[in-house]
Amino acid sequence: MSKSVLLMSMSVDGYIAGPNDDRGNPGGDGFMRLHKWYENSAGEFGKPDGEAGVIWDELNATGAIVVGRRTAEQVDYYGGDHHGVPIIVLSSKPIPPEAAKYPTVTFMSDITAAMAAAKEAAGDKDVLVHGAYTAQKALEAGVLDELQIDQVPVLFGEGLRLFDVLSQRIELEIARVIDTPEATHLRYRVVR
Amino acid sequence: MSKSVLLMSMSVDGYIAGPNDDRGNPGGDGFMRLHKWYENSAGEFGKPDGEAGVIWDELNATGAIVVGRRTAEQVDYYGGDHHGVPIIVLSSKPIPPEAAKYPTVTFMSDITAAMAAAKEAAGDKDVLVHGAYTAQKALEAGVLDELQIDQVPVLFGEGLRLFDVLSQRIELEIARVIDTPEATHLRYRVVR
Repeated sequence: MSKSVLLMSMSVDGYIAGPNDDRGNPGGDGFMRLHKWYENSAGEFGKPDGEAGVIWDELNATGAIVVGRRTAEQVDYYGGDHHGVPIIVLSSKPIPPEAAKYPTVTFMSDITAAMAAAKEAAGDKDVLVHGAYTAQKALEAGVLDELQIDQVPVLFGEGLRLFDVLSQRIELEIARVIDTPEATHLRYRVVR
Repeated sequence: MSKSVLLMSMSVDGYIAGPNDDRGNPGGDGFMRLHKWYENSAGEFGKPDGEAGVIWDELNATGAIVVGRRTAEQVDYYGGDHHGVPIIVLSSKPIPPEAAKYPTVTFMSDITAAMAAAKEAAGDKDVLVHGAYTAQKALEAGVLDELQIDQVPVLFGEGLRLFDVLSQRIELEIARVIDTPEATHLRYRVVR
């Protein structure tokens, strides 16, 4: 059965972006520090060597994406192509002209409806969820199934937190821990 | 050589205490959820069964404690006895009468001096550091050597964060990961 899975790289103090995070500086200052674990031994960004490689494979095996508007805007809606799957942007604002040119990109304002549409589009595959605000809305609406948090051994001190607007206590279950020198890859299931 | 080691149980979203945290309700609402991993199979609080038991042993092998005043106050300075070692309370306020009765409890206002005094008292043993504000002050002053974060699979949504006033980026190194169903026990070394 299709699952919705949040994928985010996070510092030990909970940041997913550095300060000065905007369109000209996606992810803010030091953003690459949080994503360095994606580098292979040749220094190329993509599937890391070793055990963490499975996370890259899982990411590329998803059948649809639900992403927050802020995140999507910063990366120009992935140029309309994120491993070829439908991209649903969560937003209550009108569709901007620069997004209208991508046929793979749809805008929806309700997280529950967005997740249902994404699961339908994904078929048997999982849905990739991206963005801090979107993740918290999905958790609160009870439509997030799992969290893949790649916890990077650094304290950021400032920036954008993954969890900052969550309004309820939510129990998790540890589904998998991949322990590498670059990051601790934590997979949690949401307990309902 | 003696090391200073922060020991804190933390939710996945970074909280070490729930809301309504005060003297009458130490650790706030749901505090015990964060410390349930200390329970053994008989439901007794103390050394947990299995691999995580080593953390209890390490805690009890420390030779001195540096603790924040807020934390210390909430637990009445451990009744003056935390496995028999000297307790240094970090505080800039005068010593309160209720603490003066404990000969093991000393008050110091400077984190660097407090850590030096604790290391001297501890001899070859490690120094246990406790409290969120104290941890961040020690990190900023460059006198915290390691962090033992026991990360509990729950999202709290509100309460007191471990990292909230840190003013700089600090690199860590993953020293040890103990993966149990109750918590992910993360040991980090501070990189200087």
